[in-house]
Amino acid sequence: MKTPDLKECREKLDGIDREIVRLFEERMAVCGQVAEYKIETGKAVYDGEREKQKLAAVREMAAGDQNKEAVEELFTQLMTMSRRYQYSLLCARKKTPPLGFTEVEEIRKRDVRVVFQGVEGAYSHAAVRMYFGEDADAYHVEKFEDTIRELERGQADYAVLPIENSTAGFVITNYDLLSRYDNYIVGEIYVPVDHVLLGVPGASVSDVKTVYSHNQALMQCSEYLDSHGDWNQVSVLNTAAAAKKVMEEGDKTQAAVASRTAGELYGLAELKTSISNERGNTTRFLVLSREPVYEKKASKVTVTFEVPHVSGSLYKILGNFIFNGVNMRMIESRPIPDKPFEYRFFVDIEGNLSHAPVHNALAGIQAEASSMKILGNY
Amino acid sequence: MKTPDLKECREKLDGIDREIVRLFEERMAVCGQVAEYKIETGKAVYDGEREKQKLAAVREMAAGDQNKEAVEELFTQLMTMSRRYQYSLLCARKKTPPLGFTEVEEIRKRDVRVVFQGVEGAYSHAAVRMYFGEDADAYHVEKFEDTIRELERGQADYAVLPIENSTAGFVITNYDLLSRYDNYIVGEIYVPVDHVLLGVPGASVSDVKTVYSHNQALMQCSEYLDSHGDWNQVSVLNTAAAAKKVMEEGDKTQAAVASRTAGELYGLAELKTSISNERGNTTRFLVLSREPVYEKKASKVTVTFEVPHVSGSLYKILGNFIFNGVNMRMIESRPIPDKPFEYRFFVDIEGNLSHAPVHNALAGIQAEASSMKILGNY
Repeated sequence: MKTPDLKECREKLDGIDREIVRLFEERMAVCGQVAEYKIETGKAVYDGEREKQKLAAVREMAAGDQNKEAVEELFTQLMTMSRRYQYSLLCARKKTPPLGFTEVEEIRKRDVRVVFQGVEGAYSHAAVRMYFGEDADAYHVEKFEDTIRELERGQADYAVLPIENSTAGFVITNYDLLSRYDNYIVGEIYVPVDHVLLGVPGASVSDVKTVYSHNQALMQCSEYLDSHGDWNQVSVLNTAAAAKKVMEEGDKTQAAVASRTAGELYGLAELKTSISNERGNTTRFLVLSREPVYEKKASKVTVTFEVPHVSGSLYKILGNFIFNGVNMRMIESRPIPDKPFEYRFFVDIEGNLSHAPVHNALAGIQAEASSMKILGNY
Repeated sequence: MKTPDLKECREKLDGIDREIVRLFEERMAVCGQVAEYKIETGKAVYDGEREKQKLAAVREMAAGDQNKEAVEELFTQLMTMSRRYQYSLLCARKKTPPLGFTEVEEIRKRDVRVVFQGVEGAYSHAAVRMYFGEDADAYHVEKFEDTIRELERGQADYAVLPIENSTAGFVITNYDLLSRYDNYIVGEIYVPVDHVLLGVPGASVSDVKTVYSHNQALMQCSEYLDSHGDWNQVSVLNTAAAAKKVMEEGDKTQAAVASRTAGELYGLAELKTSISNERGNTTRFLVLSREPVYEKKASKVTVTFEVPHVSGSLYKILGNFIFNGVNMRMIESRPIPDKPFEYRFFVDIEGNLSHAPVHNALAGIQAEASSMKILGNY
């Protein structure tokens, strides 16, 4: 067999591609007319039955199993693009079906009540003050879940919850809380974390036998703590609670890993400064509200979904982002209780609920996932 | 303006789509010739420069910004499909460029030395026996990282490491170890986990003041432990170490959360059976080797990569899976040390390194990610 000529092949491809572009543009123009029809008649953009028929029809046209598969993939993308274009026309005429969220100019930050987990002086307290101001009307509860319960009962207007640390990763269990309760993310705050080793006044590092702190903080200081391999490490509810405990028990063998602020608040001595593994350690907190609202300038959407346990389902779900040109910033999976090795996904995407591609992607996922919830746009 | 007629629009679309399918098939035929040329000349399938030129050319052809964007997306998919087809032809002729892995009939399980973390009676010990047999030549080390170091130094042929629990989620820090060391996943084992509360003989639940266990096990029993809110919870290296500690100290106020096997091994009494939050709790362990090999029947690939910190990069990377029809089973992100809120991703995909779509997807990611490592095919 003669070796094919590359130049000749490429010229053929260029000719074919020119035709494909022309047909694609014709196709989009007709889709624009379909959108007009749908706007006039109030019909939904997404018609799952029609899309299924179309995929079956194009498969039928193609020769050979490999091409049938490929043609189906190609038209899955073409139809997503067509839907996205239709949504963009609807958006321009303010006819998009609501996703259950209301746009607001700005979140109200004055004259509100805010709940956080922990005690005074915890990093979450600092987060509240950074977001709502120094004189914010803030109060604290013992557990993460309590903050959300307070929100639900109307005791607080907002709750502040840590979700991620730049060193230790995600506060995974708080993702579970977000999916279980009816609350929405309306903002986020980044708080610098600088851990110190605190002890009772007069104590020194050589006295220490037991170190108390939140589990995440112990991990964040693992290099320093592991260099004292004989210390017991005990995890308590939060860093400030650890400092409080050491202060109350007044025992020289006890130390706490917490913030300098906590040390000042509880009158403890700084036995060792800056013991975190990494410099520039930061914790990200979420601001939660009962109301499904988003600020006009919001640029990040968090969504959670479960995928049916059949091969290819995650591929189809994530295809909604890819085919719509929507970028994912983060994706996390969590096991679903009672369904071993099935996962619930949490995804952060770039964009605003009023943008057509975002709208199209989320509408597509709603139709395909076993369950989906938009956790917020902020 | 007259409302467009839906039936008429759909007939037009059907005609256009018939043309697109025909052109697509012509295109694939020419791509087959390009593959022949590349097989003859030994040229690489992926030519980033040529793909960039093609995308610029089709953008140029399209009218209007929205269509330019869409045409670029469409051709990104078309070119991925073309590459995948070319790889499939190369695979059929055994000409695929190696991904650095060697296929083997089966992993050797006899006459091998296996290292696990923990002490005898730990769940990881059970995992070793399940995979390598009851009489496996196994020994233990103190920390997860030590297992991998033993592997690296040639002290062991395989290491066994827990990676995920059906209730508590991923053993996140072990993912970091996988990305940092040169070792490869060659197998996995699922071990049922059934925690019990162990105490010294003669003790009862009402004596208990402090509970020792691995952090994950404490989380897995949080409902039971929280119902005894006054107990101190102390995390130790593993569940068996907790049982050993309680046995050695002989103190009625101390209890351990561990397996029934650990209780038998250390002569402890079962103060309370089955205290896990969920029934059917299972831990998944990975089997690691120094050698980049995979079994012929392997059906899951784990890959890790970092994405450049520019908008759209994760979208492009994951597009390689989507456009190749490769399903993802799991995706996890971990913060990258010293790069706040940038992530390293860990993805499990379905398939085998000898399959063209898998090969194509991974070759694409290698070209686009800041870094990529195939952790194993098993």
